[in-house]
Amino acid sequence: MSQSALPETEYRDRLARIQTGLAAAGAGALLLSTDADLRYVAGFLTRFWESPTRPWFLLVPARGDPVAVIPSIGQALMARTWVRDIRCWRAPDMSDDGVSLLLHTICDLLPAGGTLALPEGLGTTLRMPYADQRRLEAGLAAQGRRIGGDGRLLERLRSVKSPAEITLVRATCACAGRAFARVPEIAAEGVPLSQVFRDFQALCLAEGADWVPYLAGAAAPGGYGDVISPADDRPLARGDVLMLDTGLIRQGYFCDFDRNFSLGPPLPEVARAHERLIEATQAAFALARPGARVCDLFHAMDRIVTGGAGGSGAGRLGHGLGLQLTEQPSLIPEDETVLEPGMVLTLEPGIDLAPGRMLVHEENIVVQAGHTEWLTGPADAAILEL
Amino acid sequence: MSQSALPETEYRDRLARIQTGLAAAGAGALLLSTDADLRYVAGFLTRFWESPTRPWFLLVPARGDPVAVIPSIGQALMARTWVRDIRCWRAPDMSDDGVSLLLHTICDLLPAGGTLALPEGLGTTLRMPYADQRRLEAGLAAQGRRIGGDGRLLERLRSVKSPAEITLVRATCACAGRAFARVPEIAAEGVPLSQVFRDFQALCLAEGADWVPYLAGAAAPGGYGDVISPADDRPLARGDVLMLDTGLIRQGYFCDFDRNFSLGPPLPEVARAHERLIEATQAAFALARPGARVCDLFHAMDRIVTGGAGGSGAGRLGHGLGLQLTEQPSLIPEDETVLEPGMVLTLEPGIDLAPGRMLVHEENIVVQAGHTEWLTGPADAAILEL
Repeated sequence: MSQSALPETEYRDRLARIQTGLAAAGAGALLLSTDADLRYVAGFLTRFWESPTRPWFLLVPARGDPVAVIPSIGQALMARTWVRDIRCWRAPDMSDDGVSLLLHTICDLLPAGGTLALPEGLGTTLRMPYADQRRLEAGLAAQGRRIGGDGRLLERLRSVKSPAEITLVRATCACAGRAFARVPEIAAEGVPLSQVFRDFQALCLAEGADWVPYLAGAAAPGGYGDVISPADDRPLARGDVLMLDTGLIRQGYFCDFDRNFSLGPPLPEVARAHERLIEATQAAFALARPGARVCDLFHAMDRIVTGGAGGSGAGRLGHGLGLQLTEQPSLIPEDETVLEPGMVLTLEPGIDLAPGRMLVHEENIVVQAGHTEWLTGPADAAILEL
Repeated sequence: MSQSALPETEYRDRLARIQTGLAAAGAGALLLSTDADLRYVAGFLTRFWESPTRPWFLLVPARGDPVAVIPSIGQALMARTWVRDIRCWRAPDMSDDGVSLLLHTICDLLPAGGTLALPEGLGTTLRMPYADQRRLEAGLAAQGRRIGGDGRLLERLRSVKSPAEITLVRATCACAGRAFARVPEIAAEGVPLSQVFRDFQALCLAEGADWVPYLAGAAAPGGYGDVISPADDRPLARGDVLMLDTGLIRQGYFCDFDRNFSLGPPLPEVARAHERLIEATQAAFALARPGARVCDLFHAMDRIVTGGAGGSGAGRLGHGLGLQLTEQPSLIPEDETVLEPGMVLTLEPGIDLAPGRMLVHEENIVVQAGHTEWLTGPADAAILEL
C-alpha cells in the first residue's frame, strides 16, 4: 500500500472544491485537525492517530496550497504527500504544544479581519485540548481574526465520492465479503464468540484488509441485545443468532456492513425478521436515485421494520461511509439531504423481536447517475445457517 | 472477554480518588467524553468509538455515583457496567445532539455557582462538535455554572495502575511478545512489507489480542525514515532493517513496543546502533525507581543516543501506557513527574544514523515499590537476524 492510492489531481480537485466553498461562505481559511480530514485533503495516512497525545493541523487557505502544522515526528511521512509547506514543532511540548506555531501560520495565511472556518456538523471535533482551544481563540481575537463554521462544507464535499474513491470502497467491501463467505470455517456450536471475533479479523486480513478498525457483534438465542458490544467468551450454541459487523480498511477506505447467521435452523420469527430486513434494504435501494432524499430511504425502511413508528433506539437506519466508518448523511427523518451520484451509503435497518432480542442487517450501496449499485451482497432473504 | 475484566471495587476506588481530587480542587463535577476516560470510570468498553458521529458523556459528581449521558444505541451495553444512572437521547439528532440533556444533567448534579471540571493536559479533548461546546458553555453560564480545568487530576490518577491493571498490561505485553517471537515465520527476503503487516496482525490475534489498534513500522536498507508509516508493498530485501511497532489490546489494556530485525547480517553501524539502544533502555530501567523523575530517565537515554543533545524530532523517549496506546507522563526534559509504584512506562530511544536512516527501540516497564519490572523482553543487545 503506497502512502496514497490516489493521484495528486484527485487532491487538487478536492482543494478546488473546498476553495470554491470557502469563497462562497466568505471564509479566508479552513482549519482541519482530524485523521479523516487530513487524509481527505493531504492524503496523510497513518495509524498514529491512535496516540492521543499530539495534535495535528492542516490549513486550507482560500487561495494557494494547504499548509501542514504538525509534530516533527510526522514530517517525513507528510513530506511523502503532495503537501509541500510543512511546519513542525517538537511535540509533546508541555508549555506550548503547537498553539503558537498554528496561530502564527493562520495569521500568515488569513488577512486581518478574515474568518477561519472550522468543520461543523455531526461527528466533527477540533482535536486539541480544551485549554489550547481557548488560547487559540484568544490569540486569533487579539490578531483580528474571527472563527466561524464551515456551513458543513467539508461534510457535503466528503459525502460525494469520486470514481477513484468508489473503486477503493468497492474493493474494501469485496474484502469483507470474502471474509464473511468464510465464516463457516470459523464459527460453529461450542466456539467462544471471542474466538470467532479473533478468527474473523484474521480472515479479513487474509482477504486483503490493511487493518480491522471495527468489529462488533453478538451471539444470543433468537436475537441479540445490542450491536456495539465487544465479544464475550460464551460458546456459540444451537439457536443463537450470530451477528458480525465489521468496518475494515484498505488503502484508506472503509466498508461497514454485517451478516447474520443462525446456529442451526432459525426460529420462525428470526427467519421472518431476517426476510423483512432484506425487504427493507431492497426497498431503500429501489428509492436510492439521484434526487431522492435521505429521509425517504429512512421512511421506506422504517415502514417495513416498525410499521412506520419513526425509528428505534439505534437512532438511524444507515449513514454515509468512506474515509470513516460512519459519515454523513444520516438516514433519519430530519435529514433531507438530496442524493447525488457518488454518494456511498449504508442501509442498516433493525427489528426488535422482544426486549433484548433484535436483529440488524446492513448493506453498502453507491448512488450513481444511471443506476444505484450494491457494493455488498446483497444478502439473501433467508438467514445464513451454520 | 467480559464487559470488564475488573471488579466493581476497582471502579469504586477510582471514583473515590477522583472525588477526593475534585474536593481538593473545589470542583463540583467532572465531565468526561472520551473512550479511555469512560473506560476508566465506567468500564464501558466498545469499539464503537470508531464511529465519530455520536458524542458520549459521563459525569462524575463531587459526591455520589457517576451518571452516563449517552446515545440510546449504547444503553444496553452501559447497563452491563456498574453505572446505574443512564440518561439517553436518540442520536444522531440534527437539532440537539445531547446538549440539552447534558446541560440538564449537569445542573442536576452541580449546584449553581459550582465549577464543572474538564480533563486538561496533553492528549485531552472534549469530544463533541465545536459549535455544541459553545452551546454548552452558554447554557452553563446562563445557569450560573462555571467551567474549569481538572488540574490534570485524571491524567495523574490514570498514570498509576492498580495491581489488577498491571496484571492486564502484563498479559497484553506477553501476547505481543509471543507474536514477535514468531516473526521469522512471516518475514523473509522477498515478502512485501504490506504482507508482513497483515500476517503480523494475524499472529497477534492468534496469540490472544482482542484486536490490533496500532501497527506501524518500516523496512529499509540500514535504517528507516520514520516510525509512524503504514506499510508499502516493497518486498523485504537483504540489508533491510525491519521494524514492527505494535499496540494491541486485550481486555481493554494496551501494550506498546517494537522489535527490529536485520534481513541478513546487519551493517556494523546498525549492529552498534541497536546495542546502544538496548544500553539506553537498560540505563533508564536502572533509574526507574519510585522517587526518580521522568526527565531523569529521558536524560539517561539521551546521553547514550545523542550524547546529550536534548532529544530529537521524535519529541520524546517514552511515555505512559495503559487504557491508551500513549498516556502521560512524557519522557521529555520538561516533564518532572516523580515516579510512583504502579506507573507503567515505555522506554523508546531512537538513533539517527543518517538523514532518513534511523533505528528506534521500545520496551515497556512497570515501576514497583521494591523493584522495577520489565513487561517486555528486554531485547538482547544484538539485533535479531532474519
